[in-house]
Amino acid sequence: MLAKKAAIAVVGAGSWGTALAMVLADNAHEVRLWSHNEAQVNEINEHHTNKKYLPGIVLPELIVGYASLSDSLVGVETVILAVPTKAIREVLGKIRAVLADPITIAHVSKGIEPDTLLRITEMIKEETPNKLLKDVVVLSGPSHAEEVSLRYPTTVTVASENMEAAEKIQDLFINHNFRVYTNSDVVGVEIGGALKNIIALAAGITDGLGYGDNAKAALMTRGLAEIARLGTKMGANPLTFSGLTGIGDLIVTCTSVHSRNWRAGNMLGKGKTLDEVLDSMGMVVEGVRTTKAAFQLAKKYNVKMPITFALYDVLFNDKNAKDAVDVLMARGKTHEMEDLVNVLDERNMED
Amino acid sequence: MLAKKAAIAVVGAGSWGTALAMVLADNAHEVRLWSHNEAQVNEINEHHTNKKYLPGIVLPELIVGYASLSDSLVGVETVILAVPTKAIREVLGKIRAVLADPITIAHVSKGIEPDTLLRITEMIKEETPNKLLKDVVVLSGPSHAEEVSLRYPTTVTVASENMEAAEKIQDLFINHNFRVYTNSDVVGVEIGGALKNIIALAAGITDGLGYGDNAKAALMTRGLAEIARLGTKMGANPLTFSGLTGIGDLIVTCTSVHSRNWRAGNMLGKGKTLDEVLDSMGMVVEGVRTTKAAFQLAKKYNVKMPITFALYDVLFNDKNAKDAVDVLMARGKTHEMEDLVNVLDERNMED
Repeated sequence: MLAKKAAIAVVGAGSWGTALAMVLADNAHEVRLWSHNEAQVNEINEHHTNKKYLPGIVLPELIVGYASLSDSLVGVETVILAVPTKAIREVLGKIRAVLADPITIAHVSKGIEPDTLLRITEMIKEETPNKLLKDVVVLSGPSHAEEVSLRYPTTVTVASENMEAAEKIQDLFINHNFRVYTNSDVVGVEIGGALKNIIALAAGITDGLGYGDNAKAALMTRGLAEIARLGTKMGANPLTFSGLTGIGDLIVTCTSVHSRNWRAGNMLGKGKTLDEVLDSMGMVVEGVRTTKAAFQLAKKYNVKMPITFALYDVLFNDKNAKDAVDVLMARGKTHEMEDLVNVLDERNMED
Repeated sequence: MLAKKAAIAVVGAGSWGTALAMVLADNAHEVRLWSHNEAQVNEINEHHTNKKYLPGIVLPELIVGYASLSDSLVGVETVILAVPTKAIREVLGKIRAVLADPITIAHVSKGIEPDTLLRITEMIKEETPNKLLKDVVVLSGPSHAEEVSLRYPTTVTVASENMEAAEKIQDLFINHNFRVYTNSDVVGVEIGGALKNIIALAAGITDGLGYGDNAKAALMTRGLAEIARLGTKMGANPLTFSGLTGIGDLIVTCTSVHSRNWRAGNMLGKGKTLDEVLDSMGMVVEGVRTTKAAFQLAKKYNVKMPITFALYDVLFNDKNAKDAVDVLMARGKTHEMEDLVNVLDERNMED
């Protein structure tokens, strides 16, 4: 007989929060799935569906929808935070207001806050009093929610400054279909997850322009290099960008029809304006805000990020998408690795 | 007025040799395109087409087909060697037999010779007397021939032990559509280019099994890691595997419908036997031979290459493809980067 497992709260019932709730339920956990939308909570509890976000999927009965955040947190030690970057501070404020006992927060979002330039684990620490926060963990990797909800094989990484906390989250999620690895490099995991959305937007643009697979692969390679340059300057382990949360997530986001950021870029490449694209999506396109934050980070850390800068001009300065991509492609002949090597050399000199 | 440019011989008129001949002709070089097939040479000269390999494409008139290898080499300083790995020694023997003056050979093939475990630049040096060989260069990167022949934007890398020779080849090829970077890491460029075909076969299998984009991205990430582990042990710069000839080429080969290796894997995943697949392709599938060579290299250098080993069992030991992939996916929980870190640590200790 299995021991009764502790309840876990999943805060945010979008496609990713719901898919992760399903993984936890498959592992026999009692899952409390909170949404600010009462109609959605009723749909989850009465029909065991969440049609707007995961059409065609039946949710396990161990998932119970909660409209009350405080009810969902009673007796809970682990909170999975699955809301868009934009909503994180507001939701953390609500959690803080009703929390009695300390919790571990594992967040699954991918973004950087513009202006403050904080990563999500940093925002969580800023918004949650120490005495209420045991540990912060990030879960990231190549993982379209649609495929996870269909129980297709998926691998992700969990990272934390406290490896025991990361391993605890690993144990909650790991099963035959959902493989979970650990990594101690929180900065690298968060930067890779956030910034790949920028490259996915740009890859969507080159696809929308009909530039082909060779151009897209080159863009993705250069995109990974500029993410690694920035991340390494911020203290990440460069190897993280060659892992699941770096190149793995970049691949899945740039090459899959499921990707919102790629789809948004694709429409831009076909000549739509940013406003038209955002209107037609109906879901959050994290890459747009992340482009702004990455542009600011590149200036702060003095790192060359040509793709990010080109995309910033397209999104915020009305630059023509084709012109921006053509300039990127026509950069002068050069030694392939000089930029990354320079960053590593600089770090070694500083050490 | 432009100065008259030296003639360049392209040896091998498959899709890649022909597409590269087009790039050179676009740069106003006189290009001599050699083929062992006289009917193909006649088609090139009379119709300016090479329909079997590049259907629908009209070749520039600066490309002249040659059935005689010795005629094609008269007065030539640079030879672009564009034949399958299997044919390289035979063709080099023919070149050696008719060569009067020393040449630079830039090869554009992707493979490792089974049993001898030599890279292609090593085979070129073995088969060509020193006095007839000025330099050896490799050109590699994410570059489907079909797209290059349509003048879609493409970026590649040239590598050589002699950077001046690499830069000379860079100058011959570079133009607005075809961007060429240099790299001094010949081992890394050749290992990345050859071994990505193994991962493309495996990615084709997971796609053929219907396992989805998450699984494929994870496989590609792990595939790159095992290529980097082997290459680093063989003396390559680990950063090369994050560049165009590493991750770039891996992406284009695993995610594009143009890729022969992916298509072969896809048929294996759908239950066809290796013989059925090879019969139906009608073109060389480099990844099959490369899997054998990489399996032998992994044993020689004592490197863990689980994807290569699994594919070896599918190709040569009649192992069921689904069983092989399922075992790969279900590997125990572990720290993400431990294997690559171990290899780097070992190298540092040896230095």
